[in-house]
Amino acid sequence: MRFANATLPDGSKHDIEVSGGRIAALLPASDAGDLDLEGALVLPPLVDGHIHLDKTLLGLPWVANQATGNRVADRIEAERKVRAARTVPESETGANLVRQVVATGTLHMRSHVDIDNQLGLKNLHEILKVRERFRDLVTIQIVAFPQSGIVRSPGTAALLDAAIAEGADLLGGLDPVGIDGDLDGHLDAIFAIAQRRGVGIDIHLHDGGEAGVAQIRAIAERTRAAGLKGKVAVSHAFALGSVPVELATRTAGLLAETGIAIMSHGPGGAAIPPIKLLREHGVRVFGGSDNIRDAWSPFGNGDMLERAMMIGYRANFRHDEELALAFDMVTKTAADVLGIEDYGLAVGGPADFVVVEAGSLAEAVATRPRRKLVVKAGRIVSKDGVLVLP
Amino acid sequence: MRFANATLPDGSKHDIEVSGGRIAALLPASDAGDLDLEGALVLPPLVDGHIHLDKTLLGLPWVANQATGNRVADRIEAERKVRAARTVPESETGANLVRQVVATGTLHMRSHVDIDNQLGLKNLHEILKVRERFRDLVTIQIVAFPQSGIVRSPGTAALLDAAIAEGADLLGGLDPVGIDGDLDGHLDAIFAIAQRRGVGIDIHLHDGGEAGVAQIRAIAERTRAAGLKGKVAVSHAFALGSVPVELATRTAGLLAETGIAIMSHGPGGAAIPPIKLLREHGVRVFGGSDNIRDAWSPFGNGDMLERAMMIGYRANFRHDEELALAFDMVTKTAADVLGIEDYGLAVGGPADFVVVEAGSLAEAVATRPRRKLVVKAGRIVSKDGVLVLP
Repeated sequence: MRFANATLPDGSKHDIEVSGGRIAALLPASDAGDLDLEGALVLPPLVDGHIHLDKTLLGLPWVANQATGNRVADRIEAERKVRAARTVPESETGANLVRQVVATGTLHMRSHVDIDNQLGLKNLHEILKVRERFRDLVTIQIVAFPQSGIVRSPGTAALLDAAIAEGADLLGGLDPVGIDGDLDGHLDAIFAIAQRRGVGIDIHLHDGGEAGVAQIRAIAERTRAAGLKGKVAVSHAFALGSVPVELATRTAGLLAETGIAIMSHGPGGAAIPPIKLLREHGVRVFGGSDNIRDAWSPFGNGDMLERAMMIGYRANFRHDEELALAFDMVTKTAADVLGIEDYGLAVGGPADFVVVEAGSLAEAVATRPRRKLVVKAGRIVSKDGVLVLP
Repeated sequence: MRFANATLPDGSKHDIEVSGGRIAALLPASDAGDLDLEGALVLPPLVDGHIHLDKTLLGLPWVANQATGNRVADRIEAERKVRAARTVPESETGANLVRQVVATGTLHMRSHVDIDNQLGLKNLHEILKVRERFRDLVTIQIVAFPQSGIVRSPGTAALLDAAIAEGADLLGGLDPVGIDGDLDGHLDAIFAIAQRRGVGIDIHLHDGGEAGVAQIRAIAERTRAAGLKGKVAVSHAFALGSVPVELATRTAGLLAETGIAIMSHGPGGAAIPPIKLLREHGVRVFGGSDNIRDAWSPFGNGDMLERAMMIGYRANFRHDEELALAFDMVTKTAADVLGIEDYGLAVGGPADFVVVEAGSLAEAVATRPRRKLVVKAGRIVSKDGVLVLP
């Protein structure tokens, strides 16, 4: 099949010849295709580096936020109540979210899945079902995430270990000091499991200021000691945006040296890490949705072009090259952090792409146009924002 | 004409009987209407308290941001170059924006219009054309805005005065210290004209920290002295979000006492004023879009439900009553600040409303659903996001 008259991100015009689910050739633009894209922009698939498929309440009647305070700990408590009142399984709401994000062009994602002494491995089992159900449509990487802490939640370490055995891909972590009150105890647990199981790590770090940065530095030292260079990410890392530039710069050097990636969703109510400074020092900074209509946040919809806009808005990006950087965070760099092989628009690579009306990457980020087509392995899976596959 | 099966913002179900462009009655919900809304939520019209109809480049090919630095002054200089290169009149791009925002449900707006020694009154004349062209569709209040300063831009004070004579509704102002370097000189000029012409004032204040708050306090003192209580607004007021709570609280008291309103667009790269603290002290805080795809910002689309989301996201609002507050900022309170008479969904009032699929105001803000209908004076002017009137 030939998709004619495509504009690639570099501005060049081509016909995209697809065969056997892969891009067989990029030919001169013509009118001879099976489907005329009329010059529309063709983007590589979007990548969500941080989603919570098990938390979303998408598709259910509106659930008002019930947190009684503004701390992470208050939201953890509120969520435990929402979970207990749930009647629809996470596999259903998670599937609702997968369908919604695929229609916006996301074909790869890293989902954290809650594991704690209330849930055990229930949410993991539910999201494993989702992964299996959509395996031909989307890549779902699963992080075993100790949402209630590890040290303060006895039994969780064993559950995390079991989660990896049952199919989770990475170990998660959560504010070793702010939630668990035990930096070494928390990091001992997850680094031990990660080393034993040979998996990577992705730690949620909301703790701000110098205390937060100290934890990031401790994670980097552990990463070096464990030989996990390039396999560890810190999500949020608000702290890097709230300390003096000198300390952020020194920490950026350490992160680059240990290959630790930083995930930001462009937080609304917290400091955003200094994206450009981190990138200039060689740190991989990638994007993710974080919460989508769940017990934590009423906001979010999983559209990674909108997320790139939010990241750019919060980072005060205005120039085209800055918007292209925000776009890179939700495509190439996120794919790299997730270890997606064969990612990108290239001859011989998978025929996975997204078609939008926009003159450039910058315009696509700023205007977030409707997705005309989402193509997976050469098949049109969504058209004008509506899934056309089951 | 009867719109049947409407859900009002308070959750009650009614038929809306429209006659002579006004709401003739709110009747028990039935199936007897001319148009069945099927339980959809009916909202009062959206109000944009701060837009720049003359700045937008909407409808033109993408224009990359050209500012060479990150200060307000750098953006002013960059915009002067973009203006000089323009070939399409501001009345055309402004009309593009009016059409776009009416389709999202905005029926009232306050537009700042640039007036300086490069433009003279050209942009005012262009936007007066837009106001006339769309007079049956939308209320456009015009602020004569000294984008290049007053003291540092000789001749501007006389132009501002002339602008009011030619149809502008309010006097604008801009960072008396940060841009003009002359607090008294700047405020002398605009308060003198406002008093002589009997009009209100709306001052852009980007200056942050205690220096910014000092200017806000000076504006309040001037407002009191000039007898302009309730007729002055300060837009942005980032400073209120970047000083200790004690100073913000004291200033809130002064603002309430002098009836000064505060406009926030939920800034991405600057501090957001403490909305709840200000409201608790009786300050009217309202919302606006600010820049929409112009020489200042690549972002923005004029959708005030999206703007309410952005404001809520930046203010760390999560609870339903907080989202309802963000909604109030882009509806009732904005209408109050703009002095829109007869605003709101009430029997005897204008049949102006917006229909969306959402279970509540909170859900409407968080999800920003497509506007099924926009109704102005009883006529459907937009359907599913597309204008159906010329």
